[in-house]
Amino acid sequence: MKPRRGYIVPVGGAEEKIGALAILRRFADLCGGSNCSIAIIPTASMQSETGGRYEKIFTDLGVRDARVIPIAHRADCEKREWLDVLDEVNGVFLTGGNQLRLSTMIGGTPVAKKLRLRNAEGMHVAGTSAGAAFLCEHMIAFGKEGASPRARNVTLAPGLGLTNRIIIDQHFRQRDRLGRLLTALAYNPFAIGIGLDEDTAGFIAPDETLEVVGSGALTIVDPSGLEFSSMARVRKNDAVCLIGLKLHILDQGSTFNLHTRVAAAAPVIAKRV
Amino acid sequence: MKPRRGYIVPVGGAEEKIGALAILRRFADLCGGSNCSIAIIPTASMQSETGGRYEKIFTDLGVRDARVIPIAHRADCEKREWLDVLDEVNGVFLTGGNQLRLSTMIGGTPVAKKLRLRNAEGMHVAGTSAGAAFLCEHMIAFGKEGASPRARNVTLAPGLGLTNRIIIDQHFRQRDRLGRLLTALAYNPFAIGIGLDEDTAGFIAPDETLEVVGSGALTIVDPSGLEFSSMARVRKNDAVCLIGLKLHILDQGSTFNLHTRVAAAAPVIAKRV
Repeated sequence: MKPRRGYIVPVGGAEEKIGALAILRRFADLCGGSNCSIAIIPTASMQSETGGRYEKIFTDLGVRDARVIPIAHRADCEKREWLDVLDEVNGVFLTGGNQLRLSTMIGGTPVAKKLRLRNAEGMHVAGTSAGAAFLCEHMIAFGKEGASPRARNVTLAPGLGLTNRIIIDQHFRQRDRLGRLLTALAYNPFAIGIGLDEDTAGFIAPDETLEVVGSGALTIVDPSGLEFSSMARVRKNDAVCLIGLKLHILDQGSTFNLHTRVAAAAPVIAKRV
Repeated sequence: MKPRRGYIVPVGGAEEKIGALAILRRFADLCGGSNCSIAIIPTASMQSETGGRYEKIFTDLGVRDARVIPIAHRADCEKREWLDVLDEVNGVFLTGGNQLRLSTMIGGTPVAKKLRLRNAEGMHVAGTSAGAAFLCEHMIAFGKEGASPRARNVTLAPGLGLTNRIIIDQHFRQRDRLGRLLTALAYNPFAIGIGLDEDTAGFIAPDETLEVVGSGALTIVDPSGLEFSSMARVRKNDAVCLIGLKLHILDQGSTFNLHTRVAAAAPVIAKRV
């Protein structure tokens, strides 16, 4: 039997770290709860305490073994010790910070290869903020704020590549990023745009169903019916013309199937986790 | 038996159109010569005669059936007529122009899907200039000239996605584009950079061996041994620091294996096609 790929879990940043911890708790449960091990990759962050903080949170949530893999140089990504850890854990959590620290230090190394391979075999991978941006094949490296798409307000770079079906943006409503997500889609409307508010996550199951968890909204921009994009003719700061986008704003418990592109609201009595 | 993928053939632009026509002749032969059919997609070009010109060249080279698929709007990419043509032909040739016309008009449509599927089944796909840029998963949309990498001198966008192993730049020596290719690799050093001079092509076989055909050079930048990229910390127009790149300059008959990353010079008595 072909192994089922693991979940891919982008989080919009600033997820609850005290109180209910809906997102982190859900991820820990998904990985196996008290019976599981989770590796934390804090590479995106410049703050030395980031990894330890998540180690404590996951341990407090009852995870058997939560440990930091301290990757700070490309050479770290060749170390047998860390590759062995990635072979054993049930889940990996990528912290926030700067996504270019992830792509420049991990991209093209044995650790990147191992993460892709293990996710294909069933290991779950979550990332928050910069960690979320890095998950996909096409990563928003940086950009400008504002609700309208402008020709050059977004810079894309290759990411980890767990999926190429979606392009993720995070801190979405808090930093007014609809414009740059639309610009990213305007280049080539094959991917689906996912805008994640803070404390909001999309749990993407192996069957390509995404479920929303958290206190904010998840914005879906589906360009599959796009009739026109002006990106081939716009100049530097021009507004971009896009005709025929489909938009969904989803809250906790709502789902979206990335394959069929069908959205569904949460059942009336949604269980609050 | 699993079908063998077709060749992927990026051409650096301005390939010989009178005389020996080494590249176009080689592509026609690869597709089956007098027994084959080739579809030409002139979508990148704004000039109405582009498609017809290649139709005539391929017909003069003895191709049984060379025909233009005139895609000028996204709606054209849904037409049964063109999808049927793509089901029958042995090869597809994408002309030059502006690669953003290709990604905005074809990206995410049934034609893009068909091109990927048929290439996986054995149909050969070549592209010149803009057509070459569009072939891969990560496409250089535009950028600035100059031999040194600068933080923001390149804009990447999703391409057709026949392979994600390489990032292509064209008119390479003629337009001094080493800098922008290096910048593209600096974001995430997993792909191999391929710089194509004019009248120069890389014929990438199903086994991932690339062979150089044409009168110019093909530049390979292999970042697999990269020790450091400063892309996570550079500002707008800063120079980018990259340590540990490998560089090969290949001429006609030389090969490079994209899987093993081994380059080999042409045999001493290279056959001139």
